[in-house]
This record gives sequence, structure tokens and C-alpha cells, in this order.
Amino acid sequence: MKTDTWKNRDFITTLDYTRQELETLLGVAAELKQDFLLGKPHDHLLRKTLFMVFYNASLRTRNSFEAGMTQLGGHAHFLDQEKIYSPALPGQQAARHSEEIADTARTLSRMGHGIAIRCFGSAVSWVWGMGNQVMQEFAKWSDIPVINMEDDWYHPCQGMADIMTIKEKLGDLQGRKLVMSWAYAPDTKKPLSVAHSMLAVASKFGMELVLAHPAGYELHPTVLEGVRANVARHGGSFQIMDDMDEACRNADVVYAKSWTALQYWPPTTDKLDDSGLQALADGHKDWICDGRRMGLAKKSAFYLHCLPCNRDHEVTREVIDGPQSAVFDQAENRLHAQKAVMSLLMR
Amino acid sequence: MKTDTWKNRDFITTLDYTRQELETLLGVAAELKQDFLLGKPHDHLLRKTLFMVFYNASLRTRNSFEAGMTQLGGHAHFLDQEKIYSPALPGQQAARHSEEIADTARTLSRMGHGIAIRCFGSAVSWVWGMGNQVMQEFAKWSDIPVINMEDDWYHPCQGMADIMTIKEKLGDLQGRKLVMSWAYAPDTKKPLSVAHSMLAVASKFGMELVLAHPAGYELHPTVLEGVRANVARHGGSFQIMDDMDEACRNADVVYAKSWTALQYWPPTTDKLDDSGLQALADGHKDWICDGRRMGLAKKSAFYLHCLPCNRDHEVTREVIDGPQSAVFDQAENRLHAQKAVMSLLMR
Amino acid sequence: MKTDTWKNRDFITTLDYTRQELETLLGVAAELKQDFLLGKPHDHLLRKTLFMVFYNASLRTRNSFEAGMTQLGGHAHFLDQEKIYSPALPGQQAARHSEEIADTARTLSRMGHGIAIRCFGSAVSWVWGMGNQVMQEFAKWSDIPVINMEDDWYHPCQGMADIMTIKEKLGDLQGRKLVMSWAYAPDTKKPLSVAHSMLAVASKFGMELVLAHPAGYELHPTVLEGVRANVARHGGSFQIMDDMDEACRNADVVYAKSWTALQYWPPTTDKLDDSGLQALADGHKDWICDGRRMGLAKKSAFYLHCLPCNRDHEVTREVIDGPQSAVFDQAENRLHAQKAVMSLLMR
Repeated sequence: MKTDTWKNRDFITTLDYTRQELETLLGVAAELKQDFLLGKPHDHLLRKTLFMVFYNASLRTRNSFEAGMTQLGGHAHFLDQEKIYSPALPGQQAARHSEEIADTARTLSRMGHGIAIRCFGSAVSWVWGMGNQVMQEFAKWSDIPVINMEDDWYHPCQGMADIMTIKEKLGDLQGRKLVMSWAYAPDTKKPLSVAHSMLAVASKFGMELVLAHPAGYELHPTVLEGVRANVARHGGSFQIMDDMDEACRNADVVYAKSWTALQYWPPTTDKLDDSGLQALADGHKDWICDGRRMGLAKKSAFYLHCLPCNRDHEVTREVIDGPQSAVFDQAENRLHAQKAVMSLLMR
Repeated sequence: MKTDTWKNRDFITTLDYTRQELETLLGVAAELKQDFLLGKPHDHLLRKTLFMVFYNASLRTRNSFEAGMTQLGGHAHFLDQEKIYSPALPGQQAARHSEEIADTARTLSRMGHGIAIRCFGSAVSWVWGMGNQVMQEFAKWSDIPVINMEDDWYHPCQGMADIMTIKEKLGDLQGRKLVMSWAYAPDTKKPLSVAHSMLAVASKFGMELVLAHPAGYELHPTVLEGVRANVARHGGSFQIMDDMDEACRNADVVYAKSWTALQYWPPTTDKLDDSGLQALADGHKDWICDGRRMGLAKKSAFYLHCLPCNRDHEVTREVIDGPQSAVFDQAENRLHAQKAVMSLLMR
Repeated sequence: MKTDTWKNRDFITTLDYTRQELETLLGVAAELKQDFLLGKPHDHLLRKTLFMVFYNASLRTRNSFEAGMTQLGGHAHFLDQEKIYSPALPGQQAARHSEEIADTARTLSRMGHGIAIRCFGSAVSWVWGMGNQVMQEFAKWSDIPVINMEDDWYHPCQGMADIMTIKEKLGDLQGRKLVMSWAYAPDTKKPLSVAHSMLAVASKFGMELVLAHPAGYELHPTVLEGVRANVARHGGSFQIMDDMDEACRNADVVYAKSWTALQYWPPTTDKLDDSGLQALADGHKDWICDGRRMGLAKKSAFYLHCLPCNRDHEVTREVIDGPQSAVFDQAENRLHAQKAVMSLLMR
């Protein structure tokens, strides 16, 4: 095993990394977590700078990256895209308000050590996939690592925090059952990125994976293909079903959250079809993670959600605020997993 | 005396702290001030993080906390509430735009070392007291100290900077006369927090306290009760009067600033009564701190104001920009007092 | 030569500094650049604070100052003017939304070590020169150094990064030809600050200076006078012409960018004359830096632009993204030059 194959790469999706590389990441994250607990110095990025470009709101992501950089001895800039001449794809820039991403990326590359970006949804006129195009455009022009803080395709830092949380609780993952289930939410436009990234990473660890959703909420075929390829290589299994009860049965982990339906989004449609999204979602308000469904899972099962969540819709208070909930462990692990990502990429 | 009864507590009002605890704070603040002057390192919060959640604008508070954290070796996040999914009281969250404070507080608790909050007025739909409810809700759910950066009830960090300034100038406070006077301002909606906190803290130090305001500008009965209890215990006196001249007579300290009239605010009224506020205020434009009134005070008297102020309304330029003004000493002491608060709470 | 004549001064225009002082700055900048390259610690401003007050958007300026402070061991606050009670000139403040600059400046002086300000254009109601008034007002009241991050008159940090870039490429500047040329842009309101500052600094180093622009785009007479005085003292030459081809001929450096026409701005006019600006600009769309014009310059000539730029208007892609472009070296040197400015002023 080569000690370091991470340095100076981009981190846009875990699909670009081998299982061994992800295990390296988890090892570093666990050590950083313990160091944080004990107050042991770990200035791996002393005086270094991460530029965080936010096109969307953020609580967990921003604060874990910013506090993480402080803990590593460096500093993260919170850059609201409106305040830095909105970095735009080729052909989309407007005089006085925006700048080509090529220029933003090449400029920041000269001044610091990493560029992290969050971009999806409203920030790209509700065109699905354009957030990832923004990410790729930054990566194309940046000389320093680009880190995906969530686009419309992926949320790899969430994925790593999720698998770290699961491993903390289950130890060896071989043969353990993880359910990734759609759930109803009044907000019908949540990205698929969390579900994509959870399955993309969990499929590298030999788990028994179940994806559950009503018809219409299919994940992207490219990701499903990637998941199947991982399972073929690393063992475990992967099933898709449209029955939330059946999915939860005997699960070790229940990850239930809402995501949107791609067939109502450009480029499939001409413009975002809000009423189509609403009608489809409204037919499935019974997709909620409640005590009864957790009762179908193993006694030791726990519940995951990336937050923010719609209580009483995606999940009942009894579950998310109850003893089986691991959502704040998950939130905390954002910090440790991302510190590992930064430490590995930005040295 | 126990060395440390501060660690990991919240700092929402000084009424929760004993005189001895506040003296400990003042001692630490004085030492930090001297260290700052001499450039002596004082990394008491090395690599630690303060999350500053701002619902309202801020110059002094934000910059003193943020520079303070830098000076202590850590870092403070400037969090505009709009950018972090607005943290909302139970029942007030809206899909896609807000998140329950319970979740915000529990998340941030996992990533850093303190949460500071400013919330009042427009941020809580002009409902008086709801800013403090937000504060209390954060405190309820946070595992790390919550620091009040001003709500509709209290501004304890201002209070500590104020008493620090007064002590620097007067030494022993026993028997010295402090006037807290209302003054007219075109903005009729300023919180009562500064007056509340000044009296809450000064009443612990045996001062002769005078509160002066026109009828209609009464402070909250709960605070007045707290002040009277302090005076009963720690000596000094407390008088309320509606004559600004009489109040200023022979004073050591004149603190004159505007605050709002609670009877025009919800929950007392159905909605904020702007014209009622205006009419009441307009009847008292002569409540201004000018040279004549400073002349009624002791020759050595000085003028305090928390800033920002309405010159020519609350106070004349001759006074606030003259030799008796201590307002920038006050502003500076925000830095030192708050560094002491953070050092004591967040170790 | 006195080692240090920089400490605690303001940096509003390089016209206030001698050639020797600017050479000191360039020497420090070069050393800091090498230290950055080698990862050698240079904590010249350990735990110190720079307050950055932005009235306008910024990518390069903000990030180079903020990353620069991190690299120097301190921290820079990003202060959106709207969030700190907009600091206002005397007579322009509004209740609840703004504060007199005198108070902002005196307050910040008590808490940190430098105040940097960007202010022009829309931020001052499109009144030309008022951005500089804001800067001067801060300088008048601040006890700590005030650094110009661009106003309507000057952009001295850009000027120092520019001359640093030119020196890196040319070595001795005596007798080398620099063209500062106007170019067309759809945005007709760009400040003159960059052209002003480039000529103000280059004229201290004995260069052969050519300023080229169509009639109507004259630089301010005060700056032209300063440039001529510098040339008289330090050698070289200064010519103004209205022929971009002729200007480029045999040049070592071609700096072509757009700026506005002052005769359409208040205080010359009653209000900003947008259509006058548009009409004047539209007559000169052929003022573009393209391959043909770079061909008129020396073979070794390079192209400069402060960014952001309007490709296909100010400059062709072939030039700005081609081998003769030095614009990202320029952008990088913002970091090193400003770190030198801060290190010299804020110790």
C-alpha cells in the first residue's frame, strides 16, 4: 500500500477513490477525532487556507469545514458567491455581477490551498446537474484540490461522515443491512446527492444494501451502475424496492430522507415542474420513518439523517429524537471526516 | 473562594452570577487588557471555535468577539442567520428556510466550544421577549456555553464592559452615583437590554443608582426586582425618578441613552404600535444629555453610551465627543470583558 | 536609509511614499513570496486583526488580504458594510441603518491593528470621489493604519502587485516601455483607480510610460500631475496619445483595461449620465487588446489586467489566456504585496 495517493487530488465523489483510500481516510478521521477529544494539537494545515464558495445555505457543512480548518491550524474563508462576483460557467457570466469560473479558480489557486464548493438547485436556475458542472469547471481550472460540499449529484463528505458513523456503531460492515429509503417532505426539491453518496460509499464495504422509494424517485442510472460495480467487486448485495416496510425489515441501519424526482427537472423538462413534483410527493405521505417501521428493523438498529430534516414528515420526533437516533453523531462526524479529507488533500 | 465556578455555564444575564464571580471576571479582563497592551501571548482558547449567530447588525459586538477569539488563539464564525437555515423556535420553522434551534444548537455543540447569539426586534417580528426565548432555546439544547450578545432583555457583555470602565475610572464603587437615564432618539425601538444589564450589574457593587425616564419608559419589573434584591444584599441605593436634571445632580457617571416603551409592543399589544411609540417619544425630545446637564454632575463625572448613538438627540456632540466622554474606553472594554467571559466559560 | 518609515501609517495612495519606501515594500514582498513557496513560517502579525470593510464585491482583494493575514499568523474580518451599521460620512447617516465613520473608526481602532476599506461607485450613490472621502474619513479618525482596498481614485495594492509583477519579468525597469491603455467594456462604470495607481507607481521607477485612451477618458489632472512630478524626479518619460496601435508599438508591457469617463459623473453632472457613458464607449469598441496589437509590441512583451475582465471586449481570449498573459502572476502578487504592506504598517 502506497502511503499517500491523496495529495492534491479533487474530492468530488467517492467513486473516484478505492476502498483502500477510503479506509485510509477513515483511519485518519478516527485519529483526528480522538485528538480533538483529548485536546492534542494536530496542526496539519498550519497557516493554510480553504476557500469555501457557497451558492446555497449551510449549517453543518460550513461550520464543520471552518471549525475544522481552525483545529488544523489554518483558516477557511466563507465566500458567499454574491460577494465575490458570482463565479459562472462559460457563457453565463453577466457584466459587473459575475466572473468566469476559470478566472475565479485560477486566482484562488494562487492564494491558498483548497477550494470547497456547494452548488445546486436555485443557484443553478433549477437545472439538474448544473451544480456538478460548476464543480467540474472549478476542478478543471484549479491547481489546488477542489472539495465537493454538495452538488446535485454528490455529497461525498456527508457520505464519509455517514460511513464513519455506521462503522463506529457496527464495527465490521460485511453483511450488515443498510436501508436507504426515500421519505416524504413538503419541500419536494431536495437533491439526490446524499442518497447517491451514501450508496456509492457503502457499496465499497460489503454491506447488504436496500434502496427503497416509490416509483418516480429513481436514483440516477450512472450512480446505480457505480453501486452495482462496487458490490460486484467488494461483496454484499444491492436491492431496489418500493415497499418501505419490507425494506426496513431486519435492517441494521435505516437512513430515511426525502429527495426529488428527476423527471420533473430540466434538462428532462423545459422548466422545473413544481406541480408535478407536488402531485407525485403527495401520493406518498405515508413514507415516514416512525416507531412502527423502526420496530421492523433489528432491535439494535439506528436511524440516520443528514439534517436539516422535516420532522413529522420524513421522520417522527419519537424516532429522530429518540434513543435509536444517531443523527448528531453523524453531524459531529462531518467535522472529523472532513478534517481527514482536508489533511490528506491539502498538505 | 472556589477558583472556578464559570466553566461550561451559559452567560445570558449577570443576574445568574454572584458578585464574587463577576469580580473574578473583572480581574481576568484587566489582566487580558494588560497582556494585550504588552503583546504578551494569552492563547487560552487555542484552536477553539466560537459560533456567533447574528439575527441583527453589529459593529462592536461582532468585532470584539471575533478579534477576541483571534487574540485567544481561536476563531469565531460570523454566522448570518439567513445563511445557516434560520434557527427557529418550535413551531416557527419554514421548509427550506429554517431549522429548529434544537438541531442547530445540538449540531454546533459537536463542532466547537461556544455559541453566541444576538436576537431582538425585527428578527423576532417585533415581539418583545422573543429574542430571549431564542436565547433560552439555544441554551436548553446546547452542550457548550451560550453567550448572550444582546437580546430584548439583556446585554450582559455590555454590562460587564460598562462596569469595567466605571471601575477603571472610579476605583472603589461603594457610594458612587450612577445615573441610568432615558434619552430621546428618532429610532423609538431600541431594546431595554443595555439599561437592564447596566443596573443588574452595578447593583452588585454598592453604587448609588438612579434610574431616570419619562412615564411610559419603565424598565421590566423583573429586572427592577433583581436590582432591588442586589441592593438589599450588597448595599448602595436605588431610586427611580422622572426628572433628568435632578437625576444628574452630583452624579459620578451619566449613562444616557434611548430605549423603547414596552406597552406598545406585543405581547402587550396585538402588534407593534409605531405611532404610539412616536407620540410618546416626541413628547420628550428635551431628554438629551448636554453640557448643561453634565454641569449638574460632579466635575469629574463622565458620560457613557453603548453606541451606536444618535448625536444631537440622545447626546450633544459637545458631550459625547468631549473630554468627559468615556464611550470609546467603553467600546474597547467590550473586547477585554468578553475575552474574559470566553476564557472562563469555554476552556 | 532609515529602516522603517512605514509603521502605523495609512496606505491610501503610493503618491504618499518615496521610491525608496516602495522598494522596501517590494523587497519584503519578494521575501514573503519565497517564504510562502518554501512553507517557511512568517508570523509577523501573530494574533493581530485586520478589519476589512467592503462596500463593493471582491474576489482577489478580499481573499488575498484574508489568506495573507492567516499566513502572517493573524486574522482578517470580512465586514459587509450592511451588517455593521453602514459607516457613513457626516450628515449621511440614517437612524438604525448607519453610524458615523468617526465612531466606526474609533471603535475598531480599539480592537485590532488595521482597517482596510473598499468603496466606490454604487456604494456612494455613483458620486465620483466620494469613495475616497470615505477612505479619508476613516483615516482621519483611525488610530491604526487605514489601507485602501480600492476607492474611486486609487488602488495602491493593485499598483504594488503590478509593479512587482513587472519587475519579476523585466528586472531593472529603467527605460522599459509600459503602455496603460483604455479598452472597451460593456460595463462603462469601472473606476479609474487601477490606471491611476499603475502610473503613480511606475512613474517612480524610470519607465517610459504611455497612456492611451480615446478623447473623453482622461485620467484625473491631479494624478497626471503627480505622474509628471515623479518622472521629473526619477527619470523616464510620460506620453499621452489617442492611438492604441501607436501606443503598443515596441512596448515591454501592455496593460489594457476599461475605465469610466469622469465628465458623466457627479459632481461634474447632476446625476450619473448612463446614456452619455454608453454613447461614448460605443464609439470605441475597437479599443481591444488582441493578437495583432500584441504583435506591435516587443516579442517578449506581456499583457496585464487586474481582473475581473470582459473577455472579447477589453481583450481577446487569445491574448489573456495565451502565453503572453501575466494576469494570474499579477493576481498572485496581490497576496505577497499586500502581506508586505500589512507587515510594514501593522507591526
